[in-house]
Amino acid sequence: MIKITFPDGNIREYEAGISPMQIAESISMGLAKKVLVAEVDGKSWDLTRTLAGDCALKLYTWDDTAGKEAYWHSSAHLMAEALEALYPNVKLGIGPPIEQGFYYDIDLGEGRTMVSEDLAAIEKKMVELASKNSAFERSEVNKQEAIRFFTEKADPYKLELLQDLTDGEITFYKQGNFTDLCRGPHIPNTSYIKSVKLLNIAGAYWRGNEKNPMMTRLYGITFPKQAELDAYLTMLEEAKRRDHRKIGKELSLFTFDDMVGQGLPLWLPNGGIMIEEMERLAKEDEDADGYHRVVTPHIAKEELYITSGHLPYYAESMYPPMEMDGTKYYLRAMNCPHHHKVFDAEQKSYKDLPYRLAEYGTCYRYEDSGALFGIMRSRVLHMNDAHIYCTKDQFYDEFSKVNRLYQKNFELFGVTDYKMRLSLHDPSKLGQKYVNNSKLWLETEAMVRNVLYELGVPFEEVADEAAFYGPKIDVEMKSAIGRWFTMATNQVDFSSAEKFNLTFKNSNNEEERPLIIHRAPLGTHERYIGFLIEHFAGNFPTWLAPQQVIILPISDKFMPYAHEVNAAMRAAGIRSKTDDRNEKIGKKIRDAEVLKVPYMMVIGEKEMNENKVSVRIHGQGDKGMLPVEEVVSKLKQEIRTRSLVHII
Amino acid sequence: MIKITFPDGNIREYEAGISPMQIAESISMGLAKKVLVAEVDGKSWDLTRTLAGDCALKLYTWDDTAGKEAYWHSSAHLMAEALEALYPNVKLGIGPPIEQGFYYDIDLGEGRTMVSEDLAAIEKKMVELASKNSAFERSEVNKQEAIRFFTEKADPYKLELLQDLTDGEITFYKQGNFTDLCRGPHIPNTSYIKSVKLLNIAGAYWRGNEKNPMMTRLYGITFPKQAELDAYLTMLEEAKRRDHRKIGKELSLFTFDDMVGQGLPLWLPNGGIMIEEMERLAKEDEDADGYHRVVTPHIAKEELYITSGHLPYYAESMYPPMEMDGTKYYLRAMNCPHHHKVFDAEQKSYKDLPYRLAEYGTCYRYEDSGALFGIMRSRVLHMNDAHIYCTKDQFYDEFSKVNRLYQKNFELFGVTDYKMRLSLHDPSKLGQKYVNNSKLWLETEAMVRNVLYELGVPFEEVADEAAFYGPKIDVEMKSAIGRWFTMATNQVDFSSAEKFNLTFKNSNNEEERPLIIHRAPLGTHERYIGFLIEHFAGNFPTWLAPQQVIILPISDKFMPYAHEVNAAMRAAGIRSKTDDRNEKIGKKIRDAEVLKVPYMMVIGEKEMNENKVSVRIHGQGDKGMLPVEEVVSKLKQEIRTRSLVHII
Repeated sequence: MIKITFPDGNIREYEAGISPMQIAESISMGLAKKVLVAEVDGKSWDLTRTLAGDCALKLYTWDDTAGKEAYWHSSAHLMAEALEALYPNVKLGIGPPIEQGFYYDIDLGEGRTMVSEDLAAIEKKMVELASKNSAFERSEVNKQEAIRFFTEKADPYKLELLQDLTDGEITFYKQGNFTDLCRGPHIPNTSYIKSVKLLNIAGAYWRGNEKNPMMTRLYGITFPKQAELDAYLTMLEEAKRRDHRKIGKELSLFTFDDMVGQGLPLWLPNGGIMIEEMERLAKEDEDADGYHRVVTPHIAKEELYITSGHLPYYAESMYPPMEMDGTKYYLRAMNCPHHHKVFDAEQKSYKDLPYRLAEYGTCYRYEDSGALFGIMRSRVLHMNDAHIYCTKDQFYDEFSKVNRLYQKNFELFGVTDYKMRLSLHDPSKLGQKYVNNSKLWLETEAMVRNVLYELGVPFEEVADEAAFYGPKIDVEMKSAIGRWFTMATNQVDFSSAEKFNLTFKNSNNEEERPLIIHRAPLGTHERYIGFLIEHFAGNFPTWLAPQQVIILPISDKFMPYAHEVNAAMRAAGIRSKTDDRNEKIGKKIRDAEVLKVPYMMVIGEKEMNENKVSVRIHGQGDKGMLPVEEVVSKLKQEIRTRSLVHII
Repeated sequence: MIKITFPDGNIREYEAGISPMQIAESISMGLAKKVLVAEVDGKSWDLTRTLAGDCALKLYTWDDTAGKEAYWHSSAHLMAEALEALYPNVKLGIGPPIEQGFYYDIDLGEGRTMVSEDLAAIEKKMVELASKNSAFERSEVNKQEAIRFFTEKADPYKLELLQDLTDGEITFYKQGNFTDLCRGPHIPNTSYIKSVKLLNIAGAYWRGNEKNPMMTRLYGITFPKQAELDAYLTMLEEAKRRDHRKIGKELSLFTFDDMVGQGLPLWLPNGGIMIEEMERLAKEDEDADGYHRVVTPHIAKEELYITSGHLPYYAESMYPPMEMDGTKYYLRAMNCPHHHKVFDAEQKSYKDLPYRLAEYGTCYRYEDSGALFGIMRSRVLHMNDAHIYCTKDQFYDEFSKVNRLYQKNFELFGVTDYKMRLSLHDPSKLGQKYVNNSKLWLETEAMVRNVLYELGVPFEEVADEAAFYGPKIDVEMKSAIGRWFTMATNQVDFSSAEKFNLTFKNSNNEEERPLIIHRAPLGTHERYIGFLIEHFAGNFPTWLAPQQVIILPISDKFMPYAHEVNAAMRAAGIRSKTDDRNEKIGKKIRDAEVLKVPYMMVIGEKEMNENKVSVRIHGQGDKGMLPVEEVVSKLKQEIRTRSLVHII
């Protein structure tokens, strides 16, 4: 008999040689149907692979990242099987799961590539092979056997991969007629894969090196149900329609310029308005929570980043240095070291704590040009940053307040699905990958966990992914069309205070080190506004819309009254303007709809005579004729309360 | 007879061989008494030097920069004469006038230097020599004679200077027993110099090169009246008391850190508040005047600055490049090229003009470490920048509006003395130093001049100091203690539009180039706040004061009421806090005075019972007991109106 420990701490006894799938069945058939892959003592594990001794077991379903990864990884193998059936001479590179689906890099030989028309046949073959219900079979092979196998198969890519592997750690996975060099894990068999869509064909250098041959990268996705695939494809269509680069251009929010440089957006006036609204929001929250705002330079000497530990390890994510005055200056990639210096500028006492420093600090990070994506992944980051210096006793309250702020913002932007990914340390790596203070790790992790529980924030825990200096919380938000984005990082830091020799005098007049919380609830302007564009499809809540109101006189006769209404709106702080073109009202309305102006005020004879306007709301149509005063007052309220819905 | 043209265009005839001094006497004895030096056809000219032919003549007095320069330059010669009398072996380097006074670099031989105690004797000798009424006599010498003279005198420095001079252009000036190699001009004789003060002794490398020997630099200043010297010395004392670095530290406004780098201030929370107040002011003005705010990166590829013309010419004032992706990126030293790219991002029509782009753009400029001076001369500049793109027809109004904004700010900050220095082109350098468009130069200069006249802005015109692309207006402001600072530059630009190929469609649907106005009415945060610190001696108007109110309970018994009053203040948006220390009220008041908090609210039994506070104003003392509501309401008004005076 062996003892199996479950994630909730329960321990059950089973016969040795039992498989995770059999254990799932012993718990409930419902679970057994849902489970896709297992984790045994922290290692990925096939459901059908037997268990020899005592162990800790986790079972993953489609709802878990690990479950989806195994599913899509297995789908990549299925695609490879289909490819070998259709293209006997195909050579295979690597075929991993990705965030959404999987790909396989292939070489069709003789410089041949693939066109979209080829994909339908492969999809069909995949569905056919999947229905054969072939098991994914794991086998351990020695290196010599493995080399012999791929030499016979004449597959140069797998042979090259094999060179880097150590004998004794090599495994093959086989399903149907296909065998791959693979670490696993996989789902039990191909019948789990019900619906298949190949999405895209791209070129990719073998192993990412441009000196290597160019391979064909085939992207696909699979689902356990056709309805899920349909929903996914609809979402993709919608995402294309809401592409932040497209809407950013249509609404004149930002632009890029070759002479300025890749990944460096120029925010146009409309984008400038959104940035100011976001900053006003941040400042109000900071003022309410007792933050001090500071202003620090965008550069510093290398010494600062060596002290912080960013150099030399993080150098490749930073812009190269400027050599000057016998030293090197760097564009900052993070604001923390500057804030630590502000904290350190004057002696602090326990009465000054919690000491909260905030700055919309601009950082510059070098991203590979291939990784750049509009403003969602840029090289400049206007970061809603802050650092809270506090005592251990204050930590719980401070961290809790930070998380309530996150929640407030989720609500403000109508983000209903979000989760936090809590990255923990690995006790076996204390002193190497992690600051060597076991007690503080356990205490802080427990406090973080408790805060998240207490606030009812959905979160998952991930072992061995913490920052060097403390537990890390990645904030993930789901846009209105169901795409997840990592929007912010929230970190606990019990290392920087030591590195920068930061202290405060405690109530016994002794020097003590503060704990530091790094937080950025609005992430960066670039990424957050990019997210909001998709989330709202550019139809921003009124307070955030670059243009809030447009006055549409139906003919020139009403222009003076239109200007009068416009002036009343502007005097109330509403971003309003008049469409004074000599165009038909239908055209004016259509143009205003294209620009996604939330409120259109149509003005004609009746409106003028009664000192009213006819209100149209973008995408909703006519709301009737209302007195100007009432409209102004309601709009002011809608804007002041940052209402998510239109209240007229 | 020769024709003399005066600055007002008048022409008078005189006998050839007349001197400017004689001409001044012919106009009025009052003028003759005041005049110090002349300018003939754009060249500096001694008052006693005769005029041979027709020419344009300007006469300069103590009120003109040129007048002061000649006076102080002559004083440097007088100091050299005194030094030779007292130190027979002294060797002389150079002795120019500076902004305030003059210096002479001297070599006392055998590594000897000077101490403060030596200065009194030199001053005394200078006064004695001045009273001898020795004329400054100009003579033209050939190079050989000049070399012979200084070889006999065994003066290696002058001999070295002579090497760089062309024969035929060498002049000597002699007064009393002293002869110097000198281009002039000088005042007529030493009797003009009435009061003398030697200020400072410093070291300076010969010709600024650290490989050369170190010389002793002796600074001094002279005045036509003792009262003026006394006032100057008082002002110096006051300037020391108001030193922005000292007050910046006392009020915790900013700090510097070695690891961050020289000339790169970290603004502490109190400084952050001042910056936000300044930005709020700027934004209100921009909103009122129809500016669009944009946000652009702090870096760009070298291509951008080559296009703008800043590279390679301006390279030494920029931070060195970051080499990346096969090109060079530079930290920006100015925002204009980025704004031009924003203008160019979308097609503009005449309906979009004037198109006004504003940004508190941060720039980085390399200043020699010796030139750095707190935040008054730093390497980072948060610039209240904007660029106005307009048609020629719109220029007058736009330029006028910009200047009214300057005037509004002078008034807001209680700057009563200011002037603009209008730098014009030199027609003989069109196409070389200046854009080759004579008509546009003359038109624009006339418009600028008219605006300044019409608004009643005091200004002086300076020939041949314009920017390459148009006339330049330097704004000079006098602080409360009488020191002048150049705070901003205002420029007309008719070249950048061509360089960046910027156009708009005019009403005939043709492409046309806009004119561009560069303006920055609040200069940079660094320099402007530095100026305001001296100007107000740190006693900022309430709206700008980092801390506006401090509540001072006379004992712990009144703490709850103190917190209540504090809460009422804070709820009204007033930056208030409570001094909750267990200290005597006298100590609390003294400490609040040191921190220059404008309003102190003293709270005791009577105040609590009557729901009042006893108001004390910094530096003014007790203002009596007033109801809390009234105080809050008046303070709100004082802050909202940005009042220069306390209205309670």
